[in-house]
Amino acid sequence: MRDQYQHQLDRVLDELVEMTGDVRAALSSATQALLDADASCAEAVITGDLAIDDARERIEEESFNILARQAPVAGDLRMLVASLRMVADLERMGDLSVHIAKVARLRYPARAVPTVLVPTIQQMAKTADEMITAAAEIVATHDVEAARALDVADDDMDRLRRFMFRVLLSDEWDDGVEPAVDMALIGRYYERIGDHAVSMGRRIVFLVTGHHPAAV
Amino acid sequence: MRDQYQHQLDRVLDELVEMTGDVRAALSSATQALLDADASCAEAVITGDLAIDDARERIEEESFNILARQAPVAGDLRMLVASLRMVADLERMGDLSVHIAKVARLRYPARAVPTVLVPTIQQMAKTADEMITAAAEIVATHDVEAARALDVADDDMDRLRRFMFRVLLSDEWDDGVEPAVDMALIGRYYERIGDHAVSMGRRIVFLVTGHHPAAV
Repeated sequence: MRDQYQHQLDRVLDELVEMTGDVRAALSSATQALLDADASCAEAVITGDLAIDDARERIEEESFNILARQAPVAGDLRMLVASLRMVADLERMGDLSVHIAKVARLRYPARAVPTVLVPTIQQMAKTADEMITAAAEIVATHDVEAARALDVADDDMDRLRRFMFRVLLSDEWDDGVEPAVDMALIGRYYERIGDHAVSMGRRIVFLVTGHHPAAV
Repeated sequence: MRDQYQHQLDRVLDELVEMTGDVRAALSSATQALLDADASCAEAVITGDLAIDDARERIEEESFNILARQAPVAGDLRMLVASLRMVADLERMGDLSVHIAKVARLRYPARAVPTVLVPTIQQMAKTADEMITAAAEIVATHDVEAARALDVADDDMDRLRRFMFRVLLSDEWDDGVEPAVDMALIGRYYERIGDHAVSMGRRIVFLVTGHHPAAV
């Protein structure tokens, strides 16, 4: 019985890590759709989001069943409640990848990203991907030191977003209002994906140490 | 014992409804700060968010203690898990109100909202407020019919956002890039506040009926 219970708990964590891989893939395709003006890539992200939503529902139901049948206490209870939140973070990261893909689709066959901002978007996508990867590692290994890397990446994302605003609002910006609005929102989506990764990392730090890291 | 337990559960719901009032007040002040270019009002929203964060922490801790000590099953367990999520929705609505207030502060002493969009922002704020109010009513009364009003308001919010984009991207827009970027992000913040209200309503519908309404 105890073994089976432990197996169920481990399975929830494994599935969370697996879901993280799906979210990384969705974000990577969304970025490709955006930078290459690739409409079929955008469609794949949009339709593929159903699988991420299904994974959320399945992991929720499993966590819930353990809560209901095993009435776990202390650490296991906290872990299950944290899992229910992390799965919501992951679903939201999937939704944000869909938002990015939809901007790519809306502007197709044109590329939504003006040339001057291509390196910034590449950097934002890379930073967000590193943050999701770090969050998955923290979930898998409970290595709270890795959470520091998340904070560093979060600062990078802030800098990238501020840089983007400087470009959009500078006198040299001659791409007009529409790309500026697109880029402001796209920047926000990447930033929010990073925020959710930070929030996942912090939940594990709290589980392991019993202390909240500095407020999100 | 049973009475005390029921009292604890009721208290969590009461506190959620009370927190909804705090969030409504924050959003109302943020909108005032934005439309009147009122810097002290903006500051009050920004500093006041700490109280909303504290409420979240307190309600989480109470829900968690009930989970750990009473090991509730079935309906009560689902209610507590739903509460943990609703409290996260509410905290996020507070954060989004802070984002709105920060745009007001950033553009002070100028008003961030161009005259042509003042009625749209007023409508968005009114719609978001109605959605928070409806969500609180559903939490307090478990009246699932009220969730329909939320869907109607959600459609209104979509329409307002599309109208705003049409204005920003029309040939008549002569306010330039900066206000367009501000308004695109502000529109997004109001829309997300509405989304969180919808998500709260749906959690209660699921609790009461056992069925998820159409996907969020």
